[in-house]
Amino acid sequence: MLKAEILTRELDADGILRLTLNDPARRNALSEEMLAQLAAAFAGAAADPAVRVIVLAAKGPAFCAGHDLKEMTAGRSGPDEGRAYFVRVLTQCSGVMQGIVTCPKPVIAEVTGVATAAGCQLVASCDLAIAADTATFSTPGVHIGLFCSTPMVALSRNVAAKHAMEMLLTGDMIPADRAADMGLINRAVAVDDLRDTTMDLARKIASKSSMTLATGKRAFYAQRDMTLSDAYDYATQVMVENMLARDASEGIDAFIAKRAPAWQDA
Amino acid sequence: MLKAEILTRELDADGILRLTLNDPARRNALSEEMLAQLAAAFAGAAADPAVRVIVLAAKGPAFCAGHDLKEMTAGRSGPDEGRAYFVRVLTQCSGVMQGIVTCPKPVIAEVTGVATAAGCQLVASCDLAIAADTATFSTPGVHIGLFCSTPMVALSRNVAAKHAMEMLLTGDMIPADRAADMGLINRAVAVDDLRDTTMDLARKIASKSSMTLATGKRAFYAQRDMTLSDAYDYATQVMVENMLARDASEGIDAFIAKRAPAWQDA
Amino acid sequence: MLKAEILTRELDADGILRLTLNDPARRNALSEEMLAQLAAAFAGAAADPAVRVIVLAAKGPAFCAGHDLKEMTAGRSGPDEGRAYFVRVLTQCSGVMQGIVTCPKPVIAEVTGVATAAGCQLVASCDLAIAADTATFSTPGVHIGLFCSTPMVALSRNVAAKHAMEMLLTGDMIPADRAADMGLINRAVAVDDLRDTTMDLARKIASKSSMTLATGKRAFYAQRDMTLSDAYDYATQVMVENMLARDASEGIDAFIAKRAPAWQDA
Repeated sequence: MLKAEILTRELDADGILRLTLNDPARRNALSEEMLAQLAAAFAGAAADPAVRVIVLAAKGPAFCAGHDLKEMTAGRSGPDEGRAYFVRVLTQCSGVMQGIVTCPKPVIAEVTGVATAAGCQLVASCDLAIAADTATFSTPGVHIGLFCSTPMVALSRNVAAKHAMEMLLTGDMIPADRAADMGLINRAVAVDDLRDTTMDLARKIASKSSMTLATGKRAFYAQRDMTLSDAYDYATQVMVENMLARDASEGIDAFIAKRAPAWQDA
Repeated sequence: MLKAEILTRELDADGILRLTLNDPARRNALSEEMLAQLAAAFAGAAADPAVRVIVLAAKGPAFCAGHDLKEMTAGRSGPDEGRAYFVRVLTQCSGVMQGIVTCPKPVIAEVTGVATAAGCQLVASCDLAIAADTATFSTPGVHIGLFCSTPMVALSRNVAAKHAMEMLLTGDMIPADRAADMGLINRAVAVDDLRDTTMDLARKIASKSSMTLATGKRAFYAQRDMTLSDAYDYATQVMVENMLARDASEGIDAFIAKRAPAWQDA
Repeated sequence: MLKAEILTRELDADGILRLTLNDPARRNALSEEMLAQLAAAFAGAAADPAVRVIVLAAKGPAFCAGHDLKEMTAGRSGPDEGRAYFVRVLTQCSGVMQGIVTCPKPVIAEVTGVATAAGCQLVASCDLAIAADTATFSTPGVHIGLFCSTPMVALSRNVAAKHAMEMLLTGDMIPADRAADMGLINRAVAVDDLRDTTMDLARKIASKSSMTLATGKRAFYAQRDMTLSDAYDYATQVMVENMLARDASEGIDAFIAKRAPAWQDA
């Protein structure tokens, strides 16, 4: 019997790639294998012109439970008590999270259920997130003596300081409506509407020029860390190059002529 | 017949300068002429001791529709396909936005209606914003292949990352109440109350010491980009100089004596 | 008769240190003496292994009214019009605020009533804050010609730019529910529930490993000022060291065995 795939890929005619965490028995934990598959999937999607938007979904009641604690514990057995192993796994995980940010295609999390620790970081690292109103979010590392320090990097770039600290210091589960108020997700919807809502959002974005989306996404994260004046100098250059690109010329002509634009890569 | 002014100025007895975008036929687009007039108006207001607070209002159903697309398209006709022109216009526009931030007088946007692209950036760049509850906000560049990269600089310094990305990637119109929840505006009020609400807010601020407002506004934007420790060193110096200024001495004396303060520049 | 203590300390069996501002006649103003006592109290708590969590409470209807204006005015009498004095007091005050941030124990503000100027800064500087629903918050320096420039450093790292500017430019009192919406506090509760809510929250956090809380709190504030990539490099190192610490090993073993963890320092 073949081993079931723990990450499935479906690319539809609109250019929407659905990546589905498919290891419900382990609550879609970020095992080394899962991280390797995610890294490959995002790298592949980045390079594939047929992919316009990525939806990150999950099978089963949990969206993602974070690192695989049994695997982490087994990793301790080496002569260095696991140091080299932990460095490798955590570097791999941070690489996956940054790979979502640097991926030129917009990434939308479709959050069915519990998203904890690095699973919550996954949601925070996506560009957009829609959740079932029954989904919950937490950074529960403090319960086991292991502060969610890497999830914190993504979390604290999404929500207010006191909200981040509340999640990090208490490990409490946050319901979806509060996560929406905090800005961790874009909105919470009835679980029966989750897939349609996410796919409609994905389809809307997939109808735009991929060149334009890639330009804008890269610029968004690049300018965030700059001073206002540096950010304007940089964004002005980005916008000039964008204006000179074929899709802007086509888009503006189509708008003025009140017709649908025909993107270069569509 | 004289050409109507596209930016009108009214300075009242309280020191409130109302700048009104007055090109409703072009939905108050930021044409080169409009940008030049805005730059001059903010520079003039910065230097004019009679101006204590600035309200940026607009005539007609649209607050501001962003760049003038027909002008931008005409700009392409040069031998460089418009590169030099785009650099000039976008640099001019970023200059106007930064001129609002560096203007020593508080600037309040009074948003009557649609604020899109660089029009939305204008709202984000003001220190405060009050909107009619019928106003809407969007960064719709993706519809025409031109990501709102420069509006993004202001937008992403006002709202949470996922909210900014939602506006930027979808181009969707955001209603005023959601804009208030996001922090893009301070509040939404009934359209009939808009002018009074904004002017009351402006009058309250205009009753303060202009020296104090200028000191604080400059410090606000300067310290935002610093580390916590650098920000405290800087703000401590700012506050010492402020304590030693005549208006702080007068303000504290008046407070202790329970009388109204008489500011130096009032 | 002995002078009453203006800052009282109670350490309970759970390791929760309650520091109570106890100068209600001066509305718990941050006099030089109060600042000195707060600095000593946080430094002492940082070094005391018996202290696991700190609650900063206040006696009387005001939480804290900020600097002592009469003391500040008296400070002007020197030949330098007070410059050396203001430098000393404001540096001392910024040191107390940063001492809360650098204290390895989580600090929770329990806000009974009015928190103004440096009193509002105190709330913003704590890791978490719970307030009575009758509490109010303001940065009213503009009323007396003295912009709240140092409170601004903490405030602007907690709330959206337009919310911070509204408080700073108007000096208006913000009710507790709006402060919660803004992210300045975690939540507002009925005044009769305030102490229990805060102490329950403190107790929950005090049940975690102190080593883990200290590691995470330090990392939270350190990584905030870094670029995303630097923050991930740093947080990955922090998490590797945390994994190798005794309390993470114990916590993970306890979790897998479904038993309560026994922290090293408990």
